[in-house]
Amino acid sequence: MSAANKPVIVLVRPQLGQNIGKTARAMLNFGLTEMRLVAPRDGWPNPDAGPAASGADIVLEQARVFDTVQEAIADCSSVYASTVRRRDLIMPVIGPEDMANQIAASSKRSAILFGPERSGLETEEVALSNAIVTVPINPEFASLNLAQAVILLAYEWSKRSALSQPTAKEAEPRAPHGELDGLIGQLDDELEAKGYFHPPSRTQATKNNIRTIFTKTGWSSREVKAVRGIIRALVGPARLR
Amino acid sequence: MSAANKPVIVLVRPQLGQNIGKTARAMLNFGLTEMRLVAPRDGWPNPDAGPAASGADIVLEQARVFDTVQEAIADCSSVYASTVRRRDLIMPVIGPEDMANQIAASSKRSAILFGPERSGLETEEVALSNAIVTVPINPEFASLNLAQAVILLAYEWSKRSALSQPTAKEAEPRAPHGELDGLIGQLDDELEAKGYFHPPSRTQATKNNIRTIFTKTGWSSREVKAVRGIIRALVGPARLR
Repeated sequence: MSAANKPVIVLVRPQLGQNIGKTARAMLNFGLTEMRLVAPRDGWPNPDAGPAASGADIVLEQARVFDTVQEAIADCSSVYASTVRRRDLIMPVIGPEDMANQIAASSKRSAILFGPERSGLETEEVALSNAIVTVPINPEFASLNLAQAVILLAYEWSKRSALSQPTAKEAEPRAPHGELDGLIGQLDDELEAKGYFHPPSRTQATKNNIRTIFTKTGWSSREVKAVRGIIRALVGPARLR
Repeated sequence: MSAANKPVIVLVRPQLGQNIGKTARAMLNFGLTEMRLVAPRDGWPNPDAGPAASGADIVLEQARVFDTVQEAIADCSSVYASTVRRRDLIMPVIGPEDMANQIAASSKRSAILFGPERSGLETEEVALSNAIVTVPINPEFASLNLAQAVILLAYEWSKRSALSQPTAKEAEPRAPHGELDGLIGQLDDELEAKGYFHPPSRTQATKNNIRTIFTKTGWSSREVKAVRGIIRALVGPARLR
């Protein structure tokens, strides 16, 4: 992953130092390190930011401050404005996944703009962007705070980036069917010995049922062995310790 | 979208009321409304929760309190433990997208477990689950708080649920966890009677292993009943026909 397609996070006129710190933490959780601040209300550095960053100090230390959005995004080729759809602007509105795909496909710098906590981005600032990115949210309760909006977009970006590793993993491969057959055969024999299959006309249907029940388990070789041990214990005499 | 595949969010021994409130807010942003609390440290209701929920009061008002994880998930067929991989448990580890796909494909209730803020879930609690769900995160700075973990999983769920159609159906729905608990309890009792758990220092690990083996089966209510009959037959006297 090159630094080029790590998007820059641009906070426009952020109000609370605490929220800047929380944003740094959200960014670093997903490997984003470059924060830019446009005219932070309470100046910079802000003593409230560090404690809220929970250890993401490097992001705060490297943060750069700009007077205007234009200056902050001057070196960026693709700019996304995180906001809801604007009736006053005709421009593309995309979701977090599309944004992540576009950033990953680009070899140039990208930036994502986030507005002030209460008021959001000005129309003129949104108009500087290539697209609006909107998180699809519950229309009856849309209450994302700054750090949450950042973490959702950073998360989508990291999924597309090389940083993210495929997590889905079979804990253990399934046992070969032969081993499963051994288990089912053992069970059939033991049940036979107990007189479980009765009446004879139902025996085959019951055996088929046992087969499907134990075939669907997805057990590994280790687990098949464990279950075979359990069956032996169940039919055996009590061991006194 | 039916209520059936809205996952239940289970907070296990949550510590700060503020975090319970933030979690409610995170949930409702993505349309999740059912919160369950297992032994909240400071009791329930908690006066710190409301202000932090920023208007998601309905989630808090409807929250239900349980003494144990088992009781909280008794009516859920699929349970996901939000945690990092556990070396002491061999079970599937999936990412948020896979979890969302599985929940969307199921017609039965699902639950996602989140541990206490500092310590996380106990091994025995993770072992109650069908899979571990892990957010792929920056290995050098893994600092997700409770509400952030919830919002990321809720977000992934909402993406899938918007797409998912109520057509995908399992041949037979999974048994609720309460029924699986009954089976596992029966097996533990019978194995105990046979002196299977030895030495005592290994007993808990062996029981956890049995739990994961039988939890992963995906058995339906009918199949759980059949297996319970098989266990009874194995330990009982041979019936002469």
